[in-house]
Amino acid sequence: MNFNENLEIKRKEAESIVKSFLPEADGYNAKVKEAMDYSVNAGGKRLRPILMKESYKLFGGKDKKVEPFMAAIEMIHNYSLVHDDLPAMDNDELRRGKLTTWKKYDECTAILAGDALLNYAFEVASEAFDLVNDLEGYMEVAKAIKVLSTKAGINGMIGGQAADIEAETCANVTEDMLLFIHKNKTAALIEASMMIGAILGGASPKDVSDMERAAKNIGLAFQIQDDILDITSTQEELGKPIGSDEKNNKLTYVKLHGLEESREQVKALSEEAITILEDIADANRADGSFLMTLVETLINRSK
Amino acid sequence: MNFNENLEIKRKEAESIVKSFLPEADGYNAKVKEAMDYSVNAGGKRLRPILMKESYKLFGGKDKKVEPFMAAIEMIHNYSLVHDDLPAMDNDELRRGKLTTWKKYDECTAILAGDALLNYAFEVASEAFDLVNDLEGYMEVAKAIKVLSTKAGINGMIGGQAADIEAETCANVTEDMLLFIHKNKTAALIEASMMIGAILGGASPKDVSDMERAAKNIGLAFQIQDDILDITSTQEELGKPIGSDEKNNKLTYVKLHGLEESREQVKALSEEAITILEDIADANRADGSFLMTLVETLINRSK
Repeated sequence: MNFNENLEIKRKEAESIVKSFLPEADGYNAKVKEAMDYSVNAGGKRLRPILMKESYKLFGGKDKKVEPFMAAIEMIHNYSLVHDDLPAMDNDELRRGKLTTWKKYDECTAILAGDALLNYAFEVASEAFDLVNDLEGYMEVAKAIKVLSTKAGINGMIGGQAADIEAETCANVTEDMLLFIHKNKTAALIEASMMIGAILGGASPKDVSDMERAAKNIGLAFQIQDDILDITSTQEELGKPIGSDEKNNKLTYVKLHGLEESREQVKALSEEAITILEDIADANRADGSFLMTLVETLINRSK
Repeated sequence: MNFNENLEIKRKEAESIVKSFLPEADGYNAKVKEAMDYSVNAGGKRLRPILMKESYKLFGGKDKKVEPFMAAIEMIHNYSLVHDDLPAMDNDELRRGKLTTWKKYDECTAILAGDALLNYAFEVASEAFDLVNDLEGYMEVAKAIKVLSTKAGINGMIGGQAADIEAETCANVTEDMLLFIHKNKTAALIEASMMIGAILGGASPKDVSDMERAAKNIGLAFQIQDDILDITSTQEELGKPIGSDEKNNKLTYVKLHGLEESREQVKALSEEAITILEDIADANRADGSFLMTLVETLINRSK
């Protein structure tokens, strides 16, 4: 089985785990439940739950306690898209070729469905407590919930989104601010995914911190590659309009450092991430080959 | 010290605990942090954290582990107000005599500040794990997080809000639907407050379930009293326009059952709640007098 077939199997597996945690769309609040379902089932690469599961396996994790967190991180990712698409935010009518949640239903339902998905993420994550039975198990799940809430919140993803909106009306966006946005808006949930996988797999604090560093590199490299493709790719290859950063007068890493240095930076960040993952895989005598290929594929993608 | 002085002291104490958990408003995401702060500091009775603390004390709770949850429940209550006030929802420009968050800042900032408060509630609540050190302590905090997320979510407060919005465009609102809305939109966070206080105080599952029943009665009685006052009170007494339910053609308990039966229902619900609380106070040899007076005051209020 080649990498792409394997990835597709893992994507489907992650998707079915996420779906299994969604509430039944019945009762007087059925419309918002339907909108939650619509938002989560609108497709996507399911990258975060896959990264979490693979990180979990790197540390020998085998049982089901990672599954509630796989669902939770995907719900948080999806609620952020539902709210980002709102008219008061990015005012997007299409995502992945389908109507966005507010366009399919209405603004009010989309606001509530986003709130419900964010809240439900913590409801689902705390179900993991039912799958452990000793102090060590409780401590791991508690630590995972802390990481999930911190990385998703005002000092993580929401903070990055808040700064990104500030930057749009800001005359002087500095490199420091740009890195703050990338680190939080893009990297924080990837960090959460890989750290939670590690924590539930029983990783040491040092290993969790190494996974955080690898994930941060992956997130930053992913974002810079995105900016590079916005310039070098064709609309056909990318499947979405190119040059949008230029058009929106958006400061990017590429604008600050040029294409060549940006490509070198992507290479340096990804090599460091791979080295960290290799060391951890070796130390745990684990097969990290799928995870490392996934990281390389993500970063070196041409679309 | 009379009841009202005592209540004011407890309100201030709850407020200072909630404030102590808010993030510092600095950095590139300062605006959203400011908006979180503005929303939480716009006043309010701090009823939910007070009910939580008094329930905690009823079961002999003495230490600080209840405090993160007091902050969390108030953050959840406040995020729900921030999102409810949005133009796409109730489109309110004033709350407690001050500009609503979206009006003070902008819609985008209010959406993010609401998201950030909801997320931060779980971040703060999970800090309670740092205040326990054995399996029993972890199990209590885990149970409290489950109750918080369930009562706040799609099968609790958000579900009630979703049904309330459905009801606005629904030709035939049944009594069953009306009770669903009241139980979830109004009672669910009161249930969470009193159950979490009990759980952290070490209450038995039966006692937690009794507290849930008392809280449900309190929430329903509070809501029916609200509907009664909307008819019987004067605008001067109530401090807000009266007759708004009639004007909005809103189905209320009073419309279904008339004033007399509604008053009897408030009396029956509150008496049952007080009896439950009395029994629990007796069994725990605790002084529940403040809590019971608070409940009576809330339910029998004339404004």
